[in-house]
Amino acid sequence: MSILERAVQEIADEMRKRTDRGQVASYIPELARVDPNAFGLAVIDAEGNVAAAGDADTPFSIQSISKVFTLTLALGKAGDRLWKRVGREPSGSAFNSIVQLEHEKGIPRNPFINAGAIAVTDLILSGHQPREALGEILRFMQFVADDYSIAIDDKVAASEERTGYRNVALANYMKSFGVLDNPVNFTLGVYYHHCAISMSCRQLAMAGRFLSRAGRNPTTGHVVIPAERARRINAVMLMCGHYDGSGEFAYRVGLPGKSGVGGGILAVAPGKASIAVWSPGLDPAGNSRLGQLALEMLTKRLGWSIFA
Amino acid sequence: MSILERAVQEIADEMRKRTDRGQVASYIPELARVDPNAFGLAVIDAEGNVAAAGDADTPFSIQSISKVFTLTLALGKAGDRLWKRVGREPSGSAFNSIVQLEHEKGIPRNPFINAGAIAVTDLILSGHQPREALGEILRFMQFVADDYSIAIDDKVAASEERTGYRNVALANYMKSFGVLDNPVNFTLGVYYHHCAISMSCRQLAMAGRFLSRAGRNPTTGHVVIPAERARRINAVMLMCGHYDGSGEFAYRVGLPGKSGVGGGILAVAPGKASIAVWSPGLDPAGNSRLGQLALEMLTKRLGWSIFA
Amino acid sequence: MSILERAVQEIADEMRKRTDRGQVASYIPELARVDPNAFGLAVIDAEGNVAAAGDADTPFSIQSISKVFTLTLALGKAGDRLWKRVGREPSGSAFNSIVQLEHEKGIPRNPFINAGAIAVTDLILSGHQPREALGEILRFMQFVADDYSIAIDDKVAASEERTGYRNVALANYMKSFGVLDNPVNFTLGVYYHHCAISMSCRQLAMAGRFLSRAGRNPTTGHVVIPAERARRINAVMLMCGHYDGSGEFAYRVGLPGKSGVGGGILAVAPGKASIAVWSPGLDPAGNSRLGQLALEMLTKRLGWSIFA
Amino acid sequence: MSILERAVQEIADEMRKRTDRGQVASYIPELARVDPNAFGLAVIDAEGNVAAAGDADTPFSIQSISKVFTLTLALGKAGDRLWKRVGREPSGSAFNSIVQLEHEKGIPRNPFINAGAIAVTDLILSGHQPREALGEILRFMQFVADDYSIAIDDKVAASEERTGYRNVALANYMKSFGVLDNPVNFTLGVYYHHCAISMSCRQLAMAGRFLSRAGRNPTTGHVVIPAERARRINAVMLMCGHYDGSGEFAYRVGLPGKSGVGGGILAVAPGKASIAVWSPGLDPAGNSRLGQLALEMLTKRLGWSIFA
Repeated sequence: MSILERAVQEIADEMRKRTDRGQVASYIPELARVDPNAFGLAVIDAEGNVAAAGDADTPFSIQSISKVFTLTLALGKAGDRLWKRVGREPSGSAFNSIVQLEHEKGIPRNPFINAGAIAVTDLILSGHQPREALGEILRFMQFVADDYSIAIDDKVAASEERTGYRNVALANYMKSFGVLDNPVNFTLGVYYHHCAISMSCRQLAMAGRFLSRAGRNPTTGHVVIPAERARRINAVMLMCGHYDGSGEFAYRVGLPGKSGVGGGILAVAPGKASIAVWSPGLDPAGNSRLGQLALEMLTKRLGWSIFA
Repeated sequence: MSILERAVQEIADEMRKRTDRGQVASYIPELARVDPNAFGLAVIDAEGNVAAAGDADTPFSIQSISKVFTLTLALGKAGDRLWKRVGREPSGSAFNSIVQLEHEKGIPRNPFINAGAIAVTDLILSGHQPREALGEILRFMQFVADDYSIAIDDKVAASEERTGYRNVALANYMKSFGVLDNPVNFTLGVYYHHCAISMSCRQLAMAGRFLSRAGRNPTTGHVVIPAERARRINAVMLMCGHYDGSGEFAYRVGLPGKSGVGGGILAVAPGKASIAVWSPGLDPAGNSRLGQLALEMLTKRLGWSIFA
Repeated sequence: MSILERAVQEIADEMRKRTDRGQVASYIPELARVDPNAFGLAVIDAEGNVAAAGDADTPFSIQSISKVFTLTLALGKAGDRLWKRVGREPSGSAFNSIVQLEHEKGIPRNPFINAGAIAVTDLILSGHQPREALGEILRFMQFVADDYSIAIDDKVAASEERTGYRNVALANYMKSFGVLDNPVNFTLGVYYHHCAISMSCRQLAMAGRFLSRAGRNPTTGHVVIPAERARRINAVMLMCGHYDGSGEFAYRVGLPGKSGVGGGILAVAPGKASIAVWSPGLDPAGNSRLGQLALEMLTKRLGWSIFA
Repeated sequence: MSILERAVQEIADEMRKRTDRGQVASYIPELARVDPNAFGLAVIDAEGNVAAAGDADTPFSIQSISKVFTLTLALGKAGDRLWKRVGREPSGSAFNSIVQLEHEKGIPRNPFINAGAIAVTDLILSGHQPREALGEILRFMQFVADDYSIAIDDKVAASEERTGYRNVALANYMKSFGVLDNPVNFTLGVYYHHCAISMSCRQLAMAGRFLSRAGRNPTTGHVVIPAERARRINAVMLMCGHYDGSGEFAYRVGLPGKSGVGGGILAVAPGKASIAVWSPGLDPAGNSRLGQLALEMLTKRLGWSIFA
C-alpha cells in the first residue's frame, strides 16, 4: 500500500466515524433523498496512480462542480471576451445573492456564483439549440474524464427546474441588463441539466486531471487547454470556488477547489494530483463539511498546499 | 548574470519605458509628493541570492504591506482568538468600505482591509502603551528583514493622522460594537505609524523571506513562525491582499501578495522567492499598476505561479 | 370662470410653454411612442365641479397609478392580512430595485414599488383565473370613475410582457421566498394588464374622488371603502407614491399622490379635490416632471397642502 | 371639561394601565435611569387652550425632537443651500445606519436621521464657537416655547459623549467626504448638547405651536418662519420623523411628528393643534410605543388626521 493509498484509506475511515456532518441540501427536493452518511474520496497523482476509498464509485449530483468545466469550455469558445460578461473577483456574499448584480449593472462577480455560471452557460449556448449545447458540455466532460458512461440525471434537472425560482430571478435580472443573449428558459434549461450531471469521485478526479497537469490530458498527452489557461482557471477556483467560504477553504486546505451543493468537491494540487471528495452534509456556506475536513487532512499529510 | 538577474533587469528596463503608470495616491498629502516615475524591484531566491534593479534601494512608505507583519505578530500573541475579531474572507468591496461592518456587527471581513488591520493593531496594543506596541512592531520588522536601520517616517504618519477621517469613522464604528478594546486614538496612532514605516524593495524582500521559507529566517535558520502559520498567512494574502483587485492579482500573477497605497507590493513564491516591487502609480482598486505588471511578467518568465 | 377653472387653465397654459420636460419612458417600447408635448390637467372639487384643461380628455397609460386601485381592492378582500405580504415603509431605492427584497426575505417594502404591487396583484388573483381577476380590477376602476368606457390597451400590456425581464426577476425572487401564491406568469399577466389601463385625466380624477371624500362615491353617496381605510391609503400614497422621489413630492406639493411612468399623477386633496395631471416627460426618479410642477403650483395657489 | 380635555384625560388614564410599554433606550446610560411607567400628554389647540394629563409637567430628554428646531434654525440661516448637505427622502434604514452614506458620497438622506442632524448642526455652528451655537439653539427653543426656564441636562450630554462611538463614526465619515465644515468634536459637542435639552410635554407642545399655526407664534402673532417653510418642515417630519417607522406613524396616526429616544414625540395637526406625548418605552424602530398609540387614539377621536 503506497503512502497515498494509506492516507486516503485512513482519512475515509476516520470520516466514516464522524457525526458532525452538516445539513444535506434540501432546496432541490431530489437532492434531499441522498444518504447523508455517504463518503467517498479519490485521488489521482501525477503518475496516474489512483487511490480511492469509501463510496468513491457511487455517482452523485456534481451540481456547481460542473461550472469548472463550463468555464473551461466557454473560455475556449469566447476567450477573454468572456470577462466582459462576468468578473473574476470573490463575491463577498452567498451563492445565490442578487444584490451584487444591482450594484454592477447585471455583471456577476465571478463565474462560480449562480448568476455567473448562468452567464457562462449563455455564452456556450450562443447560436445553438439547448440540446446541442448540452451535448457539447456532456461530451467534454466524458472526454476529460475518459469515461463515456457519464450521464445527466434528468430527475434532478427536472426537480431543480420546478423549484428554481431564484435562478429564474437571477437570469431575468441579468437579461434586463442585456447580459444574456439567449431566451432565458433556453439558458436555464442547459444550466439545470449540466448541474445535474452524475459522477462518482473516481470519475470526477479523472475529469480534473488536466487542471493539475498544466492543461494536458495525461492519458493521451493531448493539450486540452493551454497551460496558462489551466493556471488561470485554478486561480479562479481558489478565489471563488467555495462561495463565501472560499477564504476559509484557502486557509484550511490551501488548494484550488470547487464545491457543489450535492456535497462534492473537486480539488487540484498543481503538478501533484487531482482529488475528488463527496459527503452530502453542508456547512452554512453551502460547502461539504466533511469534504473540506478530509481535504484539509490530506493536504497537510502529503504537503500539497500551494502556500508552502 | 544569472537567469534571475537578467529577468529582473529586463523587466525593470521595460517598466521604465511605460507611460501607463496610473495615479499616485493623493488622499494622504505626504504620499502625493513621491516621484511617479520611480520603479524598483528586488527578488531573493531560495538560496539567498539577491537580484535587484531600478530604485530597489530607495525607501518608500510601505503602508498596507505592514499589515502582513502586524497580522503575523498578532497571531503569535493571540493565536486563533484573533479570528473572533476579524474574518478571513475577501470583502467584495473597497479597502475603506464601511458597509460590510454594518451587516456583520462590526467584525471586519479580513485583516487586510483597513477596518480589519485596525482591529489587528488593537489586539497587538492590548495592555500596552502605543509607544511600546509600535516599538514591538518596528523591532519585529527589523528582525525579519535583518536590518536595524528601518524606521518610521513621522511626517507620513502625521499627514495621515490629520486627514484620516475615514479611518476614525471605521475605528469608532467597530468600537460601537465592542470590537476594539483600546481607546480609539491609541489604536489609530499605532496604526498610522506602522503604515508609515519606510523601506526599500531590497529591505522588504528580505523581510518577506520567512513567508517563502516555511516560516524560517534563512539567515539564522531560526523559526520565526510555524510552517503551518506561514502557509495560512500566504493564503490570506492571496485571497485578500489586493482589496477588490485580489481576484485579478491571483489570475494574472498567481502569487500571494500584499499591496500598499505607497505603490509597493510584497509577493511570496513559496519555496522559491520573496519579491518586492515598487511603482507609485495605482489602478482604480488601489494597487500599483506597474508593480502588478512586473510581477506578472516575472512569474510567467520564471514559472513561479502557485497554480501550475 | 371660477377661481379653480382659472387656476387650471393658467397652469396648463404655462406648462405648454415649458421646454424642460424630462425624458419619456423608453423601457416599455410602446410607451415611447407617446407625444412628449402632451399636457392634461383635471380637477374635481368637493362639490363635484370639474375643471379641465389641455389634453385632459386624451387617454394615456396609467401604469403604476393603477396600484392605488389594486391596493384598495386587495385591502377589501384580504384586510390587514395584506400587510403580512408587503410593508408600508418608503423604500429608499428605485422603483424596480431588488436589493431590498434580499434583505427582508422577499417582503417588499410597500405596495407601490413594483415588487409590492406584484404581491398585491397576487392577492387579488388568489383562487381565480387571470381573466377573472383582471375583469374585477377593470370593473372596479369603471365603477369608481363612473365610466364604463375605460379599457385596457393590450398593445401596451403585450409590449411590457415582452420586455419585462426585471419584473419577471422580482416576481420569481418573491416566489422563491413563498411570498406569491399563484403561478408567476398568471400574476404578472394580470399585473401587466392592469398597468396598461388607458384613462384620460378627467377619468382618472373621477376615479380618485372616493379617496378625497372619506371613501364615498359622491355621485351615488355609496360607501366605496370605510373612511379610515381611505385615510390610510392616502397615507401610503404620500409616503411611497413617488418611489424615491416621495419626499420631494411631499415637500413641494404636499398632497398624497401616485405617479406612473406613462407620465400621469393622481393627487388627492382630502376633503377638497381629486386631481389628475399628465405630461409624459419624467425626472430621474421616474415621476412626471411637469406633472409635479403643475401640482406644486396648483396646491400653492389654492392652499390645498395637507401640511398647513 | 371640554371635549379635548376629556379625550386627553381618558387617553392618559388608559395608557397608565397598559403593560406593553416597549424597552427604555439603554444605549445612552443616563437615559436608562428614567421611570419606564411615566406617561405625559399635552395638547394646545388653535385657540391656545391647553389640555394636559399624566406626567405632562415632568421634564424628559427630548433627544431627536430637538432636530426639528435645529432644522428650522438652519433653514433660516442657510436657506435652500442646506439641501446640498442633506437630502429629504426617507432613509429606508435605521436611525444610525452608515450604509446609506457610503452609497451617496457622505450626503445623509434626510435631516432627521443621526447623520443628517449632525450635518444640520454643523451648518448652524459655522463660524461660531460651540458655546455660541448651543446658546443660539437653546434661546430659539426658549423663544418658541415662550419659556426661559428650559435648559440642557449636562449629565445626559456627557453620558452620550462618552459612549457615542457610532455618532463619532458617522461624523468622521461625512467629514471624509467634505460634508462637514467644522472640527468633528465641535459639531458633535453641540449635537450632543442640543439632544440633551430637557422639556416637559407642556413645554414641548408650546414650542411646536408655530408649526401648527403656519409659522406664527400665537402668543405674540409674530412670524417665526414663513408659512411655506412651516409646511415644508411638516412634510419632512411626516416623511422622515420616525426613522424606519415613519410609514407606520403616517398610516396609524396621520400627523407630521418627530420622535426621540427619550420616549417623547412632538406631533403637529396643521391649523388645529400642537401635541406632545411622552412614554419612555420604545418599539424596535426606536419610537415611543405608547406615545404612538396615544396619538393614534387622539387623532382618531378628534378627526385630526391630515389624510381625510
